[in-house]
Amino acid sequence: MLFAQEVLKDVLRSIKPDQQETERLAHFVEFITKKVEEIAERLSIELEVMLVGSAARGTWIRGEHDLDLFLAFDPSETRAELELNGIEIGKAVVNEDYSDEEFHCVSYEKEYAEHPYIRATFEDREGSRYEVDIVPCFAVSDPTKIESAVDRTPFHNRYVLSKIRGIEDEVRLLKQFMKGMGVYGSELRRQGFSGYLTELLVIRYGSFLDVIKAAATSWKKGTRIDIESHGRYRGDDPLVVIDPVDPMRNVAAALSLDNLSRFIDGATRFLERPGIEFFFPPPPEEIDEDELREVINERGTRLLFIVFDRPPVVDDILFPQLRRSAQAVVDLLHREGFRMYRGAATWADSEHAVILLELEVSRLPGIKKHTGPPVWSRKHASRFRHKYKESRFGIYIENGRYVVEIKREHTDAKELLNARLREIALGKNLKKAPFAIIDGEEIMGVLKGKEFKVFLRGYFFSHRDCL
Amino acid sequence: MLFAQEVLKDVLRSIKPDQQETERLAHFVEFITKKVEEIAERLSIELEVMLVGSAARGTWIRGEHDLDLFLAFDPSETRAELELNGIEIGKAVVNEDYSDEEFHCVSYEKEYAEHPYIRATFEDREGSRYEVDIVPCFAVSDPTKIESAVDRTPFHNRYVLSKIRGIEDEVRLLKQFMKGMGVYGSELRRQGFSGYLTELLVIRYGSFLDVIKAAATSWKKGTRIDIESHGRYRGDDPLVVIDPVDPMRNVAAALSLDNLSRFIDGATRFLERPGIEFFFPPPPEEIDEDELREVINERGTRLLFIVFDRPPVVDDILFPQLRRSAQAVVDLLHREGFRMYRGAATWADSEHAVILLELEVSRLPGIKKHTGPPVWSRKHASRFRHKYKESRFGIYIENGRYVVEIKREHTDAKELLNARLREIALGKNLKKAPFAIIDGEEIMGVLKGKEFKVFLRGYFFSHRDCL
Repeated sequence: MLFAQEVLKDVLRSIKPDQQETERLAHFVEFITKKVEEIAERLSIELEVMLVGSAARGTWIRGEHDLDLFLAFDPSETRAELELNGIEIGKAVVNEDYSDEEFHCVSYEKEYAEHPYIRATFEDREGSRYEVDIVPCFAVSDPTKIESAVDRTPFHNRYVLSKIRGIEDEVRLLKQFMKGMGVYGSELRRQGFSGYLTELLVIRYGSFLDVIKAAATSWKKGTRIDIESHGRYRGDDPLVVIDPVDPMRNVAAALSLDNLSRFIDGATRFLERPGIEFFFPPPPEEIDEDELREVINERGTRLLFIVFDRPPVVDDILFPQLRRSAQAVVDLLHREGFRMYRGAATWADSEHAVILLELEVSRLPGIKKHTGPPVWSRKHASRFRHKYKESRFGIYIENGRYVVEIKREHTDAKELLNARLREIALGKNLKKAPFAIIDGEEIMGVLKGKEFKVFLRGYFFSHRDCL
Repeated sequence: MLFAQEVLKDVLRSIKPDQQETERLAHFVEFITKKVEEIAERLSIELEVMLVGSAARGTWIRGEHDLDLFLAFDPSETRAELELNGIEIGKAVVNEDYSDEEFHCVSYEKEYAEHPYIRATFEDREGSRYEVDIVPCFAVSDPTKIESAVDRTPFHNRYVLSKIRGIEDEVRLLKQFMKGMGVYGSELRRQGFSGYLTELLVIRYGSFLDVIKAAATSWKKGTRIDIESHGRYRGDDPLVVIDPVDPMRNVAAALSLDNLSRFIDGATRFLERPGIEFFFPPPPEEIDEDELREVINERGTRLLFIVFDRPPVVDDILFPQLRRSAQAVVDLLHREGFRMYRGAATWADSEHAVILLELEVSRLPGIKKHTGPPVWSRKHASRFRHKYKESRFGIYIENGRYVVEIKREHTDAKELLNARLREIALGKNLKKAPFAIIDGEEIMGVLKGKEFKVFLRGYFFSHRDCL
């Protein structure tokens, strides 16, 4: 067995950028910053250009050249002006003539988060790539006075920079460990740890190993971390990490209970038996039709897939709707007497949005018991007796109450969903999306992509959790 | 629609013994009482002969010639002496030479209740029959000092006689009404109203119709009736009727909640629409194989019959055991994840004792979820992870807890019962009785008697309840 320190040294060799890469990135940062400043001046738009994020803080991982370039506008401008000017500058940046320059833009897209922004990809002469998000924000004087979430980022940047000197590699290790666990990334699809959260944890505990030890020995559901001891956040999220720059905010608000649990579990196992595979697990496997058939047979449960045509919204909009819809579906199934084996799972690609249901009981008898009032409840009893006097099997008495046996409208879960899915609380964008309900292995004829097959195999086999 | 009073007049015409029958019964009572006294004297056994029960109280129904002849012994005798002497007299009574007499004994049996006793059948010259139970008891001075339940009967007799004069016909109506409802008889198999209870209700309320009105308008689960206002009984039976001769005793202790409910229901319906059919319902129908097949198909539930070879005990011993066993079976099924549609029903004849189970879910997947400790519960978590590290589908995390999927040993309810029935808490006499578990309509090949087919049809069709 390796000692943890040896493992970490090995990992760091793989993820820490070397000097050449560091210098080249610094060179590109200088280039692009100057370029944006020039363009702003040319367009007579007043703003301050600031690099934020992991590149600014020195916590980026080798090969990851994702830069966040913030355009800080005066707070007296309107939101509309800011968005317009931000996009104008972004577009000017990507449309510049770079023929004589050291770097050139190879592609760009317009993206939507709190504001629309431009994501541009640059290349240098050796073919190395740099992805730059050019994001407008307001240069507010105090983080509690922000107008949108991005305005807070410069404050985060300043805070981290003031604390991180000397422990950047510890952050790199923690990020890579979380990537290995599948819990890194605070997008609503993933519900994991954000980069900023990772940095705060290292600042709080001092090193990768100290974070891991804390998680393994003292973290649990509801753990609260408040570096600046100023928290006034009242929510009961799975993990609460008070933002050092805003006492009202939980940096870990997006983290799900299961991802917190996976991290605690991983930390515990790492301390028991340190290994490089926690950071670099084997690539996930796909399931093929034969294996799926075998697994379904062996489990004996019923798999149903609700496959929606994906509505044209980003993951951060789609996934909360998909999860709420899944819960509404599960509630409907329970109400009608069916029984889930596991909670619903969700997945999506660019064309489809999927709810996976695994049922323990998916077929029910043709009748169901309808329990009425106690026989001694006079008025109600009389109403019930008259209402059901033609009942096929009669009215009988059980535990002092009238009972009749009424026809069950849908004896099969798939039938029920086909009939009633439109009635329940689906998300706004899913409500009108065409859907189909696919039974068991038939899904292989509908969703043929590798990603889905990886998701499906991961659903059934969780061996990574018990390395 | 008939008025209640007209209906009652009609009913009474059918159930009230005419003068001739009354006189003949009185004549037989005189004859048999004298005979027993003579025999006791001949055998030098000291006792008092007393007629108790409905014949003594004038509350018997036409054609029912069931006499209870009590042999009251001095309380200083031992229980063994009493039983010995009681049986000796009973046997002498049935073995007399009746060739020159007006009545003669045609058959007899030894029966077992609190004491063994002789049940003899006599016939007169016209062929009318009289059934006499010759039961020994102790002539105690006070009903709270009884040694066995039968010692209380003479006190009941005296109490009822002192109150019943003039309202005997009202008792007859109530008994017949309860027979029509199927709730008359306090044997443990039936769990209904005893004759004494019926008399007390008429004494308390004054007439048949007043009992019915009370039940329909004010009775409910837990109703308490205490004619002598001296009750010290603390149980929470469905109906409590304090014994006028014993403040510690509930006369209605044997009454089940469902039979109480049926009576309340029947009383309510009778007042809504009086009819002779409440007293004389059409004879119950049998189910045949085709109808059973059709019913099973239509319901879509699964019927399982546990058929025991009947152990050699009387109904009053068998039925409590059978019901407790049924509850243990239902508990086992629930524990293992199966789901009942209705509570278990029980039935028996001289050869078989049957538990009928109707299941909503009788087949389950080949795996089941086994939920472990929260991942942050350190020691337990570690033990769980190591115990299940070879688990086929791995360990996953749900709501912060480890979960594994383990093989379900029995996926079919019938299989489970065949494997585990011997392990659960069956009654003493059922424990070793051979049994078979019969699936659905196959029962028709096993239990072919009319009584069973009537029971089975009654189980499915409760139309009598919604006349």
